[in-house]
Amino acid sequence: MDKNTWVEETMGDYYKMRYKTNAHLFSGQSNFQKVDVYETVGHGKMLLNDNLVMVSERDEFVYHDMISHIPLFTHPNPQRVLVIGGGDGGTAREVLRHKSVKECVMVEIDEMVVSACKEFIPQTSVSFKNPKLNLLIEDGVKYVKDAGLRGEKFDVIIVDSCDPIGPSAPLFGNEFYKDVHHLLNDDGIVVSQGESPYYQADNQLGLLKVLNEEFEKVFIYNFSNLTYPGGFWSFTFASKKLHPVKDFNKNRVLDSGLEFSYYNEEIHTSSFSLPEFQRKVVKKFLKE
Amino acid sequence: MDKNTWVEETMGDYYKMRYKTNAHLFSGQSNFQKVDVYETVGHGKMLLNDNLVMVSERDEFVYHDMISHIPLFTHPNPQRVLVIGGGDGGTAREVLRHKSVKECVMVEIDEMVVSACKEFIPQTSVSFKNPKLNLLIEDGVKYVKDAGLRGEKFDVIIVDSCDPIGPSAPLFGNEFYKDVHHLLNDDGIVVSQGESPYYQADNQLGLLKVLNEEFEKVFIYNFSNLTYPGGFWSFTFASKKLHPVKDFNKNRVLDSGLEFSYYNEEIHTSSFSLPEFQRKVVKKFLKE
Repeated sequence: MDKNTWVEETMGDYYKMRYKTNAHLFSGQSNFQKVDVYETVGHGKMLLNDNLVMVSERDEFVYHDMISHIPLFTHPNPQRVLVIGGGDGGTAREVLRHKSVKECVMVEIDEMVVSACKEFIPQTSVSFKNPKLNLLIEDGVKYVKDAGLRGEKFDVIIVDSCDPIGPSAPLFGNEFYKDVHHLLNDDGIVVSQGESPYYQADNQLGLLKVLNEEFEKVFIYNFSNLTYPGGFWSFTFASKKLHPVKDFNKNRVLDSGLEFSYYNEEIHTSSFSLPEFQRKVVKKFLKE
Repeated sequence: MDKNTWVEETMGDYYKMRYKTNAHLFSGQSNFQKVDVYETVGHGKMLLNDNLVMVSERDEFVYHDMISHIPLFTHPNPQRVLVIGGGDGGTAREVLRHKSVKECVMVEIDEMVVSACKEFIPQTSVSFKNPKLNLLIEDGVKYVKDAGLRGEKFDVIIVDSCDPIGPSAPLFGNEFYKDVHHLLNDDGIVVSQGESPYYQADNQLGLLKVLNEEFEKVFIYNFSNLTYPGGFWSFTFASKKLHPVKDFNKNRVLDSGLEFSYYNEEIHTSSFSLPEFQRKVVKKFLKE
């Protein structure tokens, strides 16, 4: 077996996931990270940043459904949405399916991710053609601070980031979430990539602690995709007043006319049920 | 890196999971399959049958909680439980924590799995010392037929099997489930390993079709562990009359005094919420 026909992600130095590939479509080194796109045999096109799988065509629907539709169907009328990161375009694609959304501002720090996905992964980057998208190539941390100072407001902010290393590290800190809080309307919601409760429990708890300090309400919910280590993954949900289950009206989903591959009106609620090992450790940071 | 320090499972010829190992504790070829036990760096001891991961110490609690506590907390008074397969002992271990259970009969076809786990994986095989366990080394398909002819009855039957290949293939067929139905009491429940909705959707649908033909009520529920391909996995639930959500009383869990690592009274219900892609394809076989 030719070693070069497999692309590999290593987790914690003791676990590897290897995907068979047909072609190495793109490889580049940006100012921030190594960016690669492969055509895989079993999972469609796959984007890796610094050798970590970000997106595969086969299962990206899970992540993008769950990061966007949970806040957008909890909020009664989301009109202005900010996406931090999400360079492949999949989150913006799902945000922009909501009729109430008038503008989606997307702030991605790494132009190379955007251009590689534009060229090789149209399944997610299709959103870049949407006239309601305002795509900015700049530092999300700085954008959030400056936009708040300018008096801008958003209904929903989605932090679609990598692990808390490299350019994503500040996205897991108090100062950033203070600015996010300031930038949100009074019924605002922020949802963030929340790491694995199995393999990255410390990162998950660290993020929840910050949210607990900066927000009135804090929750966490789970989903399961194929190409993140262990499959099982979390998003955090923090808000000024909205409760993701009690303020959720399933008719908003049923009446939307939208069809999903992972999300539905039952998954919305059940994703907030936590396995006992996770419930035990996170509960001190949750705020109902 | 020394190749021999990694143990590998291959999925569909396009995806590999590799676990770093410290020691190859056991290797044998039984009449039915190749049996291996490794000490891994990140997942504790690991059992593989024919190079497929069956159990790891790190995440076995997920599978064993969910295969046993869902039926045993749905049934109001489970006294006699049959486990088909489950040679590592983990399912019997969880079954026997329920005070109402007077006898757990476990029928495993492969003595080598039992003895390897007895020696190397006490975390699961601890159940073999329980006086309420009746461990039989024989063919589960034959046992189910013969026990029914003898007039035996069970409250709950758990089919803790591998994929439908080799000795496990008949465990996915109509004749077997006709015999299971006959062997169950009037409020009986059968729960079975239900494969991956992502990678083995055809096997999952095939099993649901059989259950739909043989049982009055049919459901499917999900969980997520670390060491099955993709992490996301299903169990089927079929019964003569009990509904796993409507007939479930969460006080039975809260009053049991039992503590779990994955299962809890919320997970019980939420695990029956299916992602849309799965709900769409399975719904024609479900029976409320």
